[in-house]
Amino acid sequence: MLRWNNDYNQGAHPAILKALMDTNEISYPGYGLDEWCEKAGEEIKKYLDTDKAEVHFLLGGTQVNYTVAAAALRPYQGIVSAHTAHINNHETGAIENTGHKIHAIDGKDGKLTAEGIRAEGEQYRISGVKEHITQPKMVFLSFPSEFGTYYSLKELEDIRKACSEYNMYLYIDGARMGYGLGAASCDVKLSDIARLADAFYIGGTKCGAIFGEAVVLINDDLKDNFRSYIKQNGGMLAKGWMLGLQFYTLFKDGLYFEITRHADMAALKIKKAFADKGIPFYFENDTNQQFVILSNAQMEQIGQKHIYEYEGQYDSDHHIVRFCTSWSTRNENVDILVNDIMELNL
Amino acid sequence: MLRWNNDYNQGAHPAILKALMDTNEISYPGYGLDEWCEKAGEEIKKYLDTDKAEVHFLLGGTQVNYTVAAAALRPYQGIVSAHTAHINNHETGAIENTGHKIHAIDGKDGKLTAEGIRAEGEQYRISGVKEHITQPKMVFLSFPSEFGTYYSLKELEDIRKACSEYNMYLYIDGARMGYGLGAASCDVKLSDIARLADAFYIGGTKCGAIFGEAVVLINDDLKDNFRSYIKQNGGMLAKGWMLGLQFYTLFKDGLYFEITRHADMAALKIKKAFADKGIPFYFENDTNQQFVILSNAQMEQIGQKHIYEYEGQYDSDHHIVRFCTSWSTRNENVDILVNDIMELNL
Amino acid sequence: MLRWNNDYNQGAHPAILKALMDTNEISYPGYGLDEWCEKAGEEIKKYLDTDKAEVHFLLGGTQVNYTVAAAALRPYQGIVSAHTAHINNHETGAIENTGHKIHAIDGKDGKLTAEGIRAEGEQYRISGVKEHITQPKMVFLSFPSEFGTYYSLKELEDIRKACSEYNMYLYIDGARMGYGLGAASCDVKLSDIARLADAFYIGGTKCGAIFGEAVVLINDDLKDNFRSYIKQNGGMLAKGWMLGLQFYTLFKDGLYFEITRHADMAALKIKKAFADKGIPFYFENDTNQQFVILSNAQMEQIGQKHIYEYEGQYDSDHHIVRFCTSWSTRNENVDILVNDIMELNL
Amino acid sequence: MLRWNNDYNQGAHPAILKALMDTNEISYPGYGLDEWCEKAGEEIKKYLDTDKAEVHFLLGGTQVNYTVAAAALRPYQGIVSAHTAHINNHETGAIENTGHKIHAIDGKDGKLTAEGIRAEGEQYRISGVKEHITQPKMVFLSFPSEFGTYYSLKELEDIRKACSEYNMYLYIDGARMGYGLGAASCDVKLSDIARLADAFYIGGTKCGAIFGEAVVLINDDLKDNFRSYIKQNGGMLAKGWMLGLQFYTLFKDGLYFEITRHADMAALKIKKAFADKGIPFYFENDTNQQFVILSNAQMEQIGQKHIYEYEGQYDSDHHIVRFCTSWSTRNENVDILVNDIMELNL
Repeated sequence: MLRWNNDYNQGAHPAILKALMDTNEISYPGYGLDEWCEKAGEEIKKYLDTDKAEVHFLLGGTQVNYTVAAAALRPYQGIVSAHTAHINNHETGAIENTGHKIHAIDGKDGKLTAEGIRAEGEQYRISGVKEHITQPKMVFLSFPSEFGTYYSLKELEDIRKACSEYNMYLYIDGARMGYGLGAASCDVKLSDIARLADAFYIGGTKCGAIFGEAVVLINDDLKDNFRSYIKQNGGMLAKGWMLGLQFYTLFKDGLYFEITRHADMAALKIKKAFADKGIPFYFENDTNQQFVILSNAQMEQIGQKHIYEYEGQYDSDHHIVRFCTSWSTRNENVDILVNDIMELNL
Repeated sequence: MLRWNNDYNQGAHPAILKALMDTNEISYPGYGLDEWCEKAGEEIKKYLDTDKAEVHFLLGGTQVNYTVAAAALRPYQGIVSAHTAHINNHETGAIENTGHKIHAIDGKDGKLTAEGIRAEGEQYRISGVKEHITQPKMVFLSFPSEFGTYYSLKELEDIRKACSEYNMYLYIDGARMGYGLGAASCDVKLSDIARLADAFYIGGTKCGAIFGEAVVLINDDLKDNFRSYIKQNGGMLAKGWMLGLQFYTLFKDGLYFEITRHADMAALKIKKAFADKGIPFYFENDTNQQFVILSNAQMEQIGQKHIYEYEGQYDSDHHIVRFCTSWSTRNENVDILVNDIMELNL
Repeated sequence: MLRWNNDYNQGAHPAILKALMDTNEISYPGYGLDEWCEKAGEEIKKYLDTDKAEVHFLLGGTQVNYTVAAAALRPYQGIVSAHTAHINNHETGAIENTGHKIHAIDGKDGKLTAEGIRAEGEQYRISGVKEHITQPKMVFLSFPSEFGTYYSLKELEDIRKACSEYNMYLYIDGARMGYGLGAASCDVKLSDIARLADAFYIGGTKCGAIFGEAVVLINDDLKDNFRSYIKQNGGMLAKGWMLGLQFYTLFKDGLYFEITRHADMAALKIKKAFADKGIPFYFENDTNQQFVILSNAQMEQIGQKHIYEYEGQYDSDHHIVRFCTSWSTRNENVDILVNDIMELNL
Repeated sequence: MLRWNNDYNQGAHPAILKALMDTNEISYPGYGLDEWCEKAGEEIKKYLDTDKAEVHFLLGGTQVNYTVAAAALRPYQGIVSAHTAHINNHETGAIENTGHKIHAIDGKDGKLTAEGIRAEGEQYRISGVKEHITQPKMVFLSFPSEFGTYYSLKELEDIRKACSEYNMYLYIDGARMGYGLGAASCDVKLSDIARLADAFYIGGTKCGAIFGEAVVLINDDLKDNFRSYIKQNGGMLAKGWMLGLQFYTLFKDGLYFEITRHADMAALKIKKAFADKGIPFYFENDTNQQFVILSNAQMEQIGQKHIYEYEGQYDSDHHIVRFCTSWSTRNENVDILVNDIMELNL
């Protein structure tokens, strides 16, 4: 069976394992105060084009999201996100557990819109009973979105503008950042993210690392004692250099971008196969996640050799399923999948 | 100016003030362990027709709601409510501040539906990734709703059934309980509420008391150390007998039901005036809150003598406004308002 | 039986009940945005001698304490208090429930010392692992203390200095403020409290009101959206003018100080009786709470006519008990108690 | 420079790196639902001698501690620990951030006593105002303690008895479990821990793993939806098999016990050197952490070649410092340190 159900089903890029081997007998200071975290931060900053960036390394996406919320928000402040946002659906209420309301609003193609943000901000601005409602203070979006779609540079700039108009932070969840930036039609660069967001994270777990996410804080308001928030929220790794070392390896010579682009290109082949076959997409996109609508029979047929992720029912006879490529996807497996797609019964 | 903007703009029913005067020089034990709280509980229970009720007195509705949530829910559990629910919109995120997600769903006429609850429960039941999502464990509804509408006995029984099917608590916010139960078309009695809900509260603040809400716990699961939750959440009044005394006065001879029915009847006169005038209702109901759609000109005209509550824009030229009656509404003022409604320009 | 167990066992000062009666049929805006809250704030400010004071009215002491903590502290910050502090012992962990650690330290005579505060601050200042520990950011003290003792002006000034040196807020719980300020040997005035504290509250519940506490914020850092914290934490009374009206009545002509001084003088008579009798004090003080050490036999003897509060065992044959006077204490009852003390068997 | 400052300054045991290499190209299900987590649990259970154990893998100690607290405690319940406990001092108030009070009490040699636990439990049991105080519901202890000392089997059994008498959970932090169990004089086995505790964790980070802690739940009350708590609290690793694989490797053939015993034996040599030299110990013990009292001059002398951890001032001229061995300590380095200790000036 070939696994296409997600982009975190294999270990780590060989270069990372090699780096772990090479440094295994060296002693380092703990808790992220080591040379590798320092160097990894420097490598990442080379792509950011700003001197305001502060880089921290945490262990996983859910943890990053609620830790940033804890650092950024006061108890009466909440987060604007799309209904489909990861924080709203798949993090076991971690944001609310941290004490903050999510203002979930309608998006488009799995994405927030500047209009939606403005409407939320305006509702608070004009309220005569502000003390009875929560203040929408931070905008959360994923780049790319949970459905593989992503924002154009213009869309992001509009959203930034909306945030600034209503005094909101813009926070970007980049669990799959590389797969978005590496997409064929993407006109956004990491430096744009750094220019437009108050904080964001660059995902390691789904992009070649064993684990780990690099949080980048731009806005000074979010930097105050951030390490205290990391520790308090269980994100401070004793052997922190393990995180720095992984990100250093990924960013040193652009490996991160190379391997995520590889995944996007593999996904395009799979997408083309589905399209050629006339199979409809749930959300069309050119990143590593392809969401297609299959009939029961097709699911069974393709399921004989391939593991996909089931997303939900589409209609009485059809379902939404996800096929993911990743940094570890092998071309020969892509060929097998493409072939099997072409042989699907319609 | 006559105030119709809410039902909590005057002090307390004269019988309550008299009771305060009569007992003012008597010394009592503190923190609700006094004879009046005991007696008030007994009087309330006479209407409940169950031996499972445990009665506590707290200070206000927001406080009651998050205190019950704290007592009922584990951190990974959330509350199902209508989008329009008070806890979702007007309590400054107090439920989330307590750590719990609100699963806000669409309602009908400001009310939840059994179907909506079942859909939410079913989504959790069939989920293969329960640990990634919050469990909808408690249903919150207001009786009457925030828009003055209320549930028929059949609707409540259906909702109870849905809750039981999906192992959810049913919790009823009765800030205006009396105005609902006293409505002309209401077929629900307080004993029905006690039979169907796991917990509910009977509002005092809006129904004749200076302040105070009577929480009734039916389900044993919610009773464990409830007084600890009250104290921890700031709801334990040092001079607790003041709460008991007020509720005793209200329930002793049915005063509570008498004065809230009075308000409903006054509201019906106002409703009839609007209807006769052809002015549309936002949500039609026969309780003490009447939501009507007025033009800018009408708002200005009626606003010269009457204070209403502005609810929001309806269309470019119209707005939703609320006229409330209460236990303290005087018939002569109702006549003035009715007269002024009849003279509104169309 | 005469109740001396606490200072909140009777209703309210007659002037307060009269004020409630006089205004009972007037309609007011809700949630503390009324004329009485405004006027009460102005009357209180007359004693504060600063133009920085912002006054809010909440419902009870526990609620005030955790609400101020929520507004003042970030999640990694804690509160320094004496081990004997109310927040550390008798508020059901409300501060921790709000997410903050209490740094409980040894005090003296129930009071914090500047030295103790400095030691706590210094420990954090010199720590090389600040992200692993909580920052002591707020000092909590009660004036008078939980044992009726109080700080001299010099002691308070030293504590303020210590707080400033270590960048901590000074917050003063004045549940019994009047009984402290009115004590014969007290050299502190309310304007000193306002000059030295960043925030404090003036207790109503124990000093003549039915309920209610007046929170005074001095430091601008604590004022941001404080009403949102009040609402979120269940402290915003719908009929807020009831709180304003009570405090206006208490402060208009100095009634608050008059009635608390009366209690202190009554306590002095009781204290003198115990002293004359040779009965030892647990903490000697001249406020309304007298803590004495009685034998089992003495407890039984005095307990035949008087209700005191049992505090704990002192040695195998002795116990600590509290006798409280209050604004409502009658002179003839004091005489009875004094007489009965004089007749205690030794 | 040789690092003795802690036991987490080198990567991972070679067998673990080898396991990572061997499985790197295999695809696994995510979030701990893989074969390695299953197998690792089975291997661990072989040492537990009970069929009640449920094993979960989390990322770090702080995270484990507050996640177990979240799962075990209701908001009004707290944790009894020694003042010196890790949760009380070095986890940035994570327990309080989760909403729970720590009842810190005096210990002995860095350890809790059954007497201390009973006193805390008794105080709650006899309290007449339980709703005003927090219930001590869970006992937290580290095995070995933060100072390298550990409990005898009899002490642990007494503590278990005290917990049962007062209806408290016993939770054991085993960040360094192996170093305790492997100590020469230790009469406790892992099966004793499993028999006496309601929950505990076996540390990986400090005992040969890159990262990861194995939580063992014994008491059914703590098992309810524990995976939801893990996810909500940021402890659910996407590539969860990485954790299972490490623990499988450590426990398969007793490697865990072998490498921690090695560290203890190395520590004994260092201890003997200090003792021979007449240098006093702060807390004497025979585990991998040796706390000695050095003069300023001695610290400088030994610091020229060795990195120790500074713990705090002892007296005007002396300081407490820690020398740690670990699974990665090399015998030749021990010899160098021993030699340098022998040459210390007195």
